[in-house]
Amino acid sequence: MAIRLDHTDPDFEGRFRALLGAKREVSEDVDAVVRGILADVRTRGDAAVLDYTARFDRLPLTADRLRVSEADFAAADELVDDRTRAALVLARDRIQSHHARQKPADDRYVDALGVELGSRWTAIEAVGLYVPGGTASYPSSVLMNAVPAKVAGVDRVVMVVPAPDGLINPLVLVAARLAGVDELYRIGGAQAIAALAFGTETIRPVYKIVGPGNAYVAAAKRQVFGTVGIDMIAGPSEVLVIADGANDPDWLAADLLAQAEHDVAAQSILMTDDPALADAVEKAVERQLKTLPRGETAAASWRDYGAIITVPSLDAAVPLSDRIAPEHLEIATADPERLVEKVRNAGAIFVGRTTPEVIGDYVGGSNHVLPTARSARFSSGLSVLDFMKRTSILKTGPEQLRALGPAAIALAEAEGLAAHGRSVAIRLNL
Amino acid sequence: MAIRLDHTDPDFEGRFRALLGAKREVSEDVDAVVRGILADVRTRGDAAVLDYTARFDRLPLTADRLRVSEADFAAADELVDDRTRAALVLARDRIQSHHARQKPADDRYVDALGVELGSRWTAIEAVGLYVPGGTASYPSSVLMNAVPAKVAGVDRVVMVVPAPDGLINPLVLVAARLAGVDELYRIGGAQAIAALAFGTETIRPVYKIVGPGNAYVAAAKRQVFGTVGIDMIAGPSEVLVIADGANDPDWLAADLLAQAEHDVAAQSILMTDDPALADAVEKAVERQLKTLPRGETAAASWRDYGAIITVPSLDAAVPLSDRIAPEHLEIATADPERLVEKVRNAGAIFVGRTTPEVIGDYVGGSNHVLPTARSARFSSGLSVLDFMKRTSILKTGPEQLRALGPAAIALAEAEGLAAHGRSVAIRLNL
Repeated sequence: MAIRLDHTDPDFEGRFRALLGAKREVSEDVDAVVRGILADVRTRGDAAVLDYTARFDRLPLTADRLRVSEADFAAADELVDDRTRAALVLARDRIQSHHARQKPADDRYVDALGVELGSRWTAIEAVGLYVPGGTASYPSSVLMNAVPAKVAGVDRVVMVVPAPDGLINPLVLVAARLAGVDELYRIGGAQAIAALAFGTETIRPVYKIVGPGNAYVAAAKRQVFGTVGIDMIAGPSEVLVIADGANDPDWLAADLLAQAEHDVAAQSILMTDDPALADAVEKAVERQLKTLPRGETAAASWRDYGAIITVPSLDAAVPLSDRIAPEHLEIATADPERLVEKVRNAGAIFVGRTTPEVIGDYVGGSNHVLPTARSARFSSGLSVLDFMKRTSILKTGPEQLRALGPAAIALAEAEGLAAHGRSVAIRLNL
Repeated sequence: MAIRLDHTDPDFEGRFRALLGAKREVSEDVDAVVRGILADVRTRGDAAVLDYTARFDRLPLTADRLRVSEADFAAADELVDDRTRAALVLARDRIQSHHARQKPADDRYVDALGVELGSRWTAIEAVGLYVPGGTASYPSSVLMNAVPAKVAGVDRVVMVVPAPDGLINPLVLVAARLAGVDELYRIGGAQAIAALAFGTETIRPVYKIVGPGNAYVAAAKRQVFGTVGIDMIAGPSEVLVIADGANDPDWLAADLLAQAEHDVAAQSILMTDDPALADAVEKAVERQLKTLPRGETAAASWRDYGAIITVPSLDAAVPLSDRIAPEHLEIATADPERLVEKVRNAGAIFVGRTTPEVIGDYVGGSNHVLPTARSARFSSGLSVLDFMKRTSILKTGPEQLRALGPAAIALAEAEGLAAHGRSVAIRLNL
């Protein structure tokens, strides 16, 4: 049973703050263990990776079996039915065409003084993609991470996925192939992050590592940050549904449970101006939970982190939503665009009653890797920009140097940097 | 005396790798100390901040004196001469107009299926800017960090700068005012990062923290990452100069020393196809060092990390430069644009003999906060984008949901997420 809050309650602010502050993740302290694994892989390379893989994934390998082969891909392909493959292809194509629009334009111009300035975008040469094993091994996540990298123009997209007891979800291999992944290794955990960051005899290093993982993977990414780039550290999934009274409670209940089934630490919140709808959704959630295969997970998430908040008006929902900064925001109201315009902090907005968030998980075309844990206040979902970097370009001819030089010299002097001043003055015969 | 490498030496690759791998920073292990300070400020707020400020900055304050007042700004303004102020204004204006071009455009479109997709950029509401105290308290850095934030539309730019023994560089205050900083507090260290991230009674929290700092500040930024966003962790500065034989060796020596004077861990590298120029620059560096106020620092940097690399052709310099991925790349050749086009990894390129890097430090208009320590392979200099975030928008009408729904259901089933499937199916009466 989720908590119920009403915006007009005298203790609302305190309870809403408690909801915002609730820690949904217990971060295990695995830093020391991870530090040891990273150092070992850095020193011993393949041999260390093979040792950890034998130990943690119960998978004895030799170096030449680290990489997934053409035969492995072909075998996986046999196991995937046509309907699923077609759905993956549709998703891939839609992600590709949407992300192609995100490619940034170079800029080069001459300003009024004659100074030439520019920004040039280039793709990162090599990117690593971590894909978890087991039940969280989602083919859709492979597409969401790898397709934007290839759209950006990354030369080498190197994927790692652990194969506990030798098993890899065949859909993950098929998705990797569809997305254009260039190399795939059957390794996971901190040892895989180390191999990607430092390289081994078999695996050439990459320059940036993206993708979700468990506490060990997250700690390893934090520790190699600097040696390589990393994406954000993803937390449990969240949805906030802002709804008026005219909704079908069963639709909204299904949306809330679609988040809740991900993880016991997922969070689903409903905000509505209609207390009757709030009651009806609450009942619908309880009803639907009974027939859900992952009902236990969803029930725990809904019980521990779910919330139903009644507000005096739909407009009053927006500032609360901005404080939550939800990963996913559904706006199921008669005039959703009016609210969309007012929202400042959200990873993704799903507009109107017939846009369930799940469409965005798979086939909408937009990215499903989105900022969690209120980080939409300061960060964005994954995009082509995450796989590119910008070089700035500056060019001053003798005339421009004469115009700007004296001010540069003045500031260099003010900062006590004489050689800075000299490097300009010497060119001006000063 | 810098090392000398020649591309045709049989041991070149090994020595070049050693140069790339040289660790220029000893990272002190201050994690435990910082963890204690963060927890203390989080619990005790202002009281803890005041205690640490009294202890570390020898500055006894009360909460109402944390914030720099109008009177403080006015007093600082008195101390700054007109020439320096005019230079700061010129720098501010040029940074502003260049960064205004970086504002990203929103995108909203309808695809062939009738699905509406969009990306909307909004400014982060509140950003913290750390400015170091003492000799590294640079007014130019205040402009380079704060101006792009205001161009992005950040509502609250909150700056912190420590005032050891009560002293703040007046130029830093003047620059803060010119840049449009909204609030300024005279605190520093991990306690300032904690105050920005968690807030205190006096200081409202921010959502992202940028700016350079010492080992304590860097460790504190890493630890609050997640609670707030952070920028990259800046390392010592670097320049790589690619030069043909037609250069004045004194000009290039001055450029190499302008980096070297920053820090004993700074790095200056010359690459040239002319061994005679290499010799001449080497001599010019030694000569200029003698008359440099910060000569000791520059000499140590040049001795420990400087390098002169001779290459058989200018084209051969580019792949080496891409492996170094320099923060600053000067191309001082007869036809620099030809090389500019080939460069993939560099924070900023300075084109031609009359574009010393120092112009970019101050008045070029481009940003001087750039990726160090080879991170230009995967990251970019500071820009307006660092102060904004993107919300993705998706809208499917009933018809689009019918078109895309079955594929979403297929993928939900393949991933074992029944509630995901239901949230689509229920809207299609499936």
